[in-house]
Amino acid sequence: MTVRLAVGQMDPMIGDMKGNMKKMQEILVSASDNNVDVLVLPELINSGYVFDSQDEANSLSEQIPDGDFSNALQKWSEGGGLVVAGLCEMSDGKLYNSAAVFGNGRHLTTYRKIQLFNREKEWFLPGNEEPPVIVHNGYRFGVMVCFDWVFPEISRILALKGAQAILHPANLVLPFCPAAMITRSIENRVFTATSGRTGEERDVRFIGGSQITTPKGELLSRMDEGHSGLLWADVELTEADNKSLTKRNDVFTDRRPELYSRITDVS
Amino acid sequence: MTVRLAVGQMDPMIGDMKGNMKKMQEILVSASDNNVDVLVLPELINSGYVFDSQDEANSLSEQIPDGDFSNALQKWSEGGGLVVAGLCEMSDGKLYNSAAVFGNGRHLTTYRKIQLFNREKEWFLPGNEEPPVIVHNGYRFGVMVCFDWVFPEISRILALKGAQAILHPANLVLPFCPAAMITRSIENRVFTATSGRTGEERDVRFIGGSQITTPKGELLSRMDEGHSGLLWADVELTEADNKSLTKRNDVFTDRRPELYSRITDVS
Repeated sequence: MTVRLAVGQMDPMIGDMKGNMKKMQEILVSASDNNVDVLVLPELINSGYVFDSQDEANSLSEQIPDGDFSNALQKWSEGGGLVVAGLCEMSDGKLYNSAAVFGNGRHLTTYRKIQLFNREKEWFLPGNEEPPVIVHNGYRFGVMVCFDWVFPEISRILALKGAQAILHPANLVLPFCPAAMITRSIENRVFTATSGRTGEERDVRFIGGSQITTPKGELLSRMDEGHSGLLWADVELTEADNKSLTKRNDVFTDRRPELYSRITDVS
Repeated sequence: MTVRLAVGQMDPMIGDMKGNMKKMQEILVSASDNNVDVLVLPELINSGYVFDSQDEANSLSEQIPDGDFSNALQKWSEGGGLVVAGLCEMSDGKLYNSAAVFGNGRHLTTYRKIQLFNREKEWFLPGNEEPPVIVHNGYRFGVMVCFDWVFPEISRILALKGAQAILHPANLVLPFCPAAMITRSIENRVFTATSGRTGEERDVRFIGGSQITTPKGELLSRMDEGHSGLLWADVELTEADNKSLTKRNDVFTDRRPELYSRITDVS
């Protein structure tokens, strides 16, 4: 059975929560009109990205799942879908760069970004928990946010936990991520769905780069920085359960974890 | 101080050890003529790649460092260079897909490929030791062989051990490796030098793909499948000691090894 996997690309603008909500709603409507099953939306879709101060960042946050964006996402998922969106999250007076996950009308989990990029470290606390894999309608989805892509450990962990697809809200700036996500697909034999953003905020220009890749390293579709909207592919997620790369190679059973101790060395 | 880092591309042919030696010697001479400091040569340069039987594979092997190819490599390194070449290695009656390393006229180490590709599993035993980093003239070089590229743990380990450049003898068949090595460079902020091969043996066609990349993910040079010869770049290897990706991001200190335990889980 195929699943319609989609990524939405738009330009959340700093400080314009009303405008951001309107743009997000347009994508949600488009996703419904096009019978999307699983939807990924960009990082920090409520707030925009380039903050000037902690006060500004705080003022553009919401609580999950009680905020307006959370409510809109939860409502969309009542139709049976799964949606992951990046949100500027306030929790107990602390700010996180989070990905909120809603499925079948319920808040399933919130992942707090582990690997903060550049000035994000000024505004956000990093997450301190292993990235999550959630089950929705019998399929398994891993979640990571933007700069997490640089660290192969993050997507590896998601794949080892059984993720068939990695859902990846992002605000891409560096040019390397789209190609790297193809590598992440191959090395883990998983689908990936990255949702980037467009536009320019203060001194930062975003590259778009929304795309969907397969366990075989195929790029199914990619959107450049000049476009907003919805990109989807109908995928057979169980293909990711087959970790064979050749008749004699399985990228999981071929691993030699007994030789990898240096990777977890905290000294 | 820059180091002239080179990769040699050629077509070792199955069973033609004399011809393979001649082709290798041509590259060694060219490397000397062009003042190469560090040279990477393809995987299984003595034997060719596509064996038909264990007997055939055994008959095309040599002992390291006593064999003819080893001797030629050692001799080349007497000029002060470092050379890594893939050799079909016989040791105590066992066959390995190895990378032999010679520097300043000495045999420095032999790495036995951990991640065997496809039918290699029929002929070779896998290596059982963490991949090595060797020091040569004050610089640090990691060594891995071909299909090791698929497993991010291997290059990560080399980088964590201090490798400034990953020297990577290969016989590339899959089309994904050249792009993946750019990802390996970025995620570890290291140079990589991959030496592929050309030609066709029995049912297998090789893609070339020799290339040199930088810690910033730049592709300095690449050779396609239609060419043999030497490719080099003058590089400042100490650039790899700087793991900063932005002013606030260091790809090593940003790592969260305390969250990575799943990667070394052997259960």
